Amino acid sequence: MYIEGKNAIRQAIESKTTINKIMVDKNIQGRKDEIINLAAQNKIKFEFVPKVVLDKKSKTGHHQGYIAETVDFKYCSIEDILNKAKVNNEKPFIVILDGIEDPHNFGAIIRSCECAGVHGIIIPKNRAVQVNETVIRTSTGAISNMLIAKVTNLKDAIKELKDNDIWVFAAETGGEDIYNKKLTQNIAVVIGSEGFGIKKSIIDCCDGTITLPLRGKVNSLNASVACGIVVFEILRQRLGGQND
Amino acid sequence: MYIEGKNAIRQAIESKTTINKIMVDKNIQGRKDEIINLAAQNKIKFEFVPKVVLDKKSKTGHHQGYIAETVDFKYCSIEDILNKAKVNNEKPFIVILDGIEDPHNFGAIIRSCECAGVHGIIIPKNRAVQVNETVIRTSTGAISNMLIAKVTNLKDAIKELKDNDIWVFAAETGGEDIYNKKLTQNIAVVIGSEGFGIKKSIIDCCDGTITLPLRGKVNSLNASVACGIVVFEILRQRLGGQND
Repeated sequence: MYIEGKNAIRQAIESKTTINKIMVDKNIQGRKDEIINLAAQNKIKFEFVPKVVLDKKSKTGHHQGYIAETVDFKYCSIEDILNKAKVNNEKPFIVILDGIEDPHNFGAIIRSCECAGVHGIIIPKNRAVQVNETVIRTSTGAISNMLIAKVTNLKDAIKELKDNDIWVFAAETGGEDIYNKKLTQNIAVVIGSEGFGIKKSIIDCCDGTITLPLRGKVNSLNASVACGIVVFEILRQRLGGQND
Repeated sequence: MYIEGKNAIRQAIESKTTINKIMVDKNIQGRKDEIINLAAQNKIKFEFVPKVVLDKKSKTGHHQGYIAETVDFKYCSIEDILNKAKVNNEKPFIVILDGIEDPHNFGAIIRSCECAGVHGIIIPKNRAVQVNETVIRTSTGAISNMLIAKVTNLKDAIKELKDNDIWVFAAETGGEDIYNKKLTQNIAVVIGSEGFGIKKSIIDCCDGTITLPLRGKVNSLNASVACGIVVFEILRQRLGGQND
């Protein structure tokens, strides 16, 4: 798997992603170059190649002169996510994605979740975008710090979470106002797909539905924005500020 | 200007955007088609054309068989935005974008702002994305319900807002925790660009800086997600829920 561009590679190095090597445009001056210095400090192999090699290898067209070759992304289990919360001595905070299709949305969601202190993300094996180069790039390195479990059946996953004393809420229209709902317990929140929201059969498995109040004429937010608002509202409640 | 795709055109019709005509793939069956019915109900002209005509005209490659031709987007003045708040009998709630470059981010921001009840958005004339087809499409119709002022100088715009008793806050790192700050007054919030945040000279014009607490190792959110979280925190405080 490849990571392209300065920021994404810097983040990957800082997050200790396993990088096989970094290919660098041979026109880039080595001595003062941030990525080369970082690679050297972290004992990561780098090699200079002609720009055309990078252009050919690039999936995004925005390699900026750097492409890192990493090991394939390793998905984890739900147990790993629960263990992370336990090790951190925190109440579990999990996001479940029901069929996100756009890799840019998935990448932005990983980024938001990482910023909000989410312990892990659960995605379905089928009919949803998987971790790929675009997801990694859009996450700007956050993926290296995020556990992602890929499951065959979301309903079984929700049941497993409930069996572990976690409350599972669907973030959908028509539920309880999120701002009037206490969300400080062990929690998992389900975010729906871009076009169709959350499947009814999944909502039926949840402990309840939480809803953002919308004031305009347009009745839905972008999926990654909605996820960002929801996870930060949970973080806000957990932090318990003066406005609480 | 053109709007492409079923959802964007439906929203545009429902929001009373001025549409000259809608071109429809001639293979689409008319009688039961939602867009054709909506167009007929709203006395909007539609014409059937071969798919190749749509393919050629399409900027996004996702026209889904429909392209609407609209009048060019009309920017408004800051005064128009203030008047909207006044007419609605609400405290002004304004977003200022300092150099957003990605049309998808701009479109998502318009969508979030519309959902949060923002009265208008102020953008700079130069070095920032303007309203274009991608912005319109990504806003999924929200643009028809959002006032956008394009100004030569953001600092002058901020001064004008201050002269109108509006508090202007920069949303940036290193400021006051947003969750410990009262944001229920007349307010404008500045969101920075994807790569560089808010210019120092703009921050210096503001009444203060508000910051989202970030828990992970990645130190920034996607610009449209950050904007969504900030405007919904302001909405939350304005609504004053049980958790307040």
